Amino acid sequence: MNQVEVAFSPTIFNHYDIDNKIVVVADILRATSVICTMFKNGVTEIIPVRNIEEARAYKEKGYLVVAERNGQKLDFADFGNSPFYFTPETIGGKIVVYSTTNGTNAITMGKDANQVIIGSFLNISSVINYLVDKSHDVLIMCAGWKGKFSLEDALFAGALSKALISTNKFSTICDSANASMDLWNLAKDDLANYLEKVAQRHRLKKMGLDDVIGYCFTPDVTDVLPVLVGDRLKAISPK
Amino acid sequence: MNQVEVAFSPTIFNHYDIDNKIVVVADILRATSVICTMFKNGVTEIIPVRNIEEARAYKEKGYLVVAERNGQKLDFADFGNSPFYFTPETIGGKIVVYSTTNGTNAITMGKDANQVIIGSFLNISSVINYLVDKSHDVLIMCAGWKGKFSLEDALFAGALSKALISTNKFSTICDSANASMDLWNLAKDDLANYLEKVAQRHRLKKMGLDDVIGYCFTPDVTDVLPVLVGDRLKAISPK
Repeated sequence: MNQVEVAFSPTIFNHYDIDNKIVVVADILRATSVICTMFKNGVTEIIPVRNIEEARAYKEKGYLVVAERNGQKLDFADFGNSPFYFTPETIGGKIVVYSTTNGTNAITMGKDANQVIIGSFLNISSVINYLVDKSHDVLIMCAGWKGKFSLEDALFAGALSKALISTNKFSTICDSANASMDLWNLAKDDLANYLEKVAQRHRLKKMGLDDVIGYCFTPDVTDVLPVLVGDRLKAISPK
Repeated sequence: MNQVEVAFSPTIFNHYDIDNKIVVVADILRATSVICTMFKNGVTEIIPVRNIEEARAYKEKGYLVVAERNGQKLDFADFGNSPFYFTPETIGGKIVVYSTTNGTNAITMGKDANQVIIGSFLNISSVINYLVDKSHDVLIMCAGWKGKFSLEDALFAGALSKALISTNKFSTICDSANASMDLWNLAKDDLANYLEKVAQRHRLKKMGLDDVIGYCFTPDVTDVLPVLVGDRLKAISPK
């Protein structure tokens, strides 16, 4: 029986043993939802970078750069962080450099794990199928908000943990996994209403960027499975 | 309207602004439950120390020392960490030096706040009354388990947040506070059953130390309110 654990924030990530585990990074509003959308629409590779200077240096070398902080596009970047920007016309066949407030930091932290994959509601069935097939222990890493707990990432962790455990190939003794499953069970039947209390929803609303909420909670919009290969994200083709 | 926030682990504590806030430290299994029990039974002061060497040095100076790691009493210590050790006969009128796996670390981290107070189910009404009376913003700091999230501390955070908000003198926009209130609402009507999933319960059970569970979730066993004064905990007399 494989184990599933949940880390509620990248800040506590180094308290987990990730040796030989698959790390699933989740930043539902919005980085991992955006990444899945980019691969769905034909991006070939994504280079996640942690800091603004690095993103700017890539821009100067001619790369297409997506970069935001606190929800807002950085001045030198080609795009901000809404999934709706990334159509086949804008990013099909291209390499994209990507830097966000929380998500890209979380992705690069997982490097020492057996593998890092990108999870969101948009590709949740692909993630489940892949993890069941791989038979490794799993750590779901929530990107959170500036080092803190985020409810929307916990809901995804709960949905994913519950799905894995329901296959009878995974179990958990992790308090965070149990808490996130309880939160998901509470939220899932009236998700739109439950999401009213999510702080990030209100942050995005203030900036007029909350049009993405419904989309980011839609399951299985795509079957792409982005994985970290070296320092780049690439998509594994589904079986 | 004052704000209430929850930090699920000391690891993420430095992501919170604690300026002019009252920090309530909660380590339900077992440090803050033990501290409340000690003051109930007449300890005069508790000196929380973070590391074992410091605890040992106090022992050599003749202090009464309570010290555990991973649930087990350290060899040089006078007592381990069960609240049942601390009767009026053992600690009445004495100063106790105290060092535990998670709780004492959390207490000493809050030093820069307006005030640090000790919360547990055992003194929850005293905590609520004090916070309502003080009218400061509140950060509930869960001690967690080795830097990670602990369900039992989140349940306390939920119970306390809910009680504060129900006075209409507090509100929250904190995802952790909202999540912990949801978990508490889910657990409270059948707490004994819900606690079955708490990992720390199973850790204590393995060591034969789980006899404290029922006691540690009993509300209002005492009206003591331990507060940090300099580097020592002292009890404020209730009104």
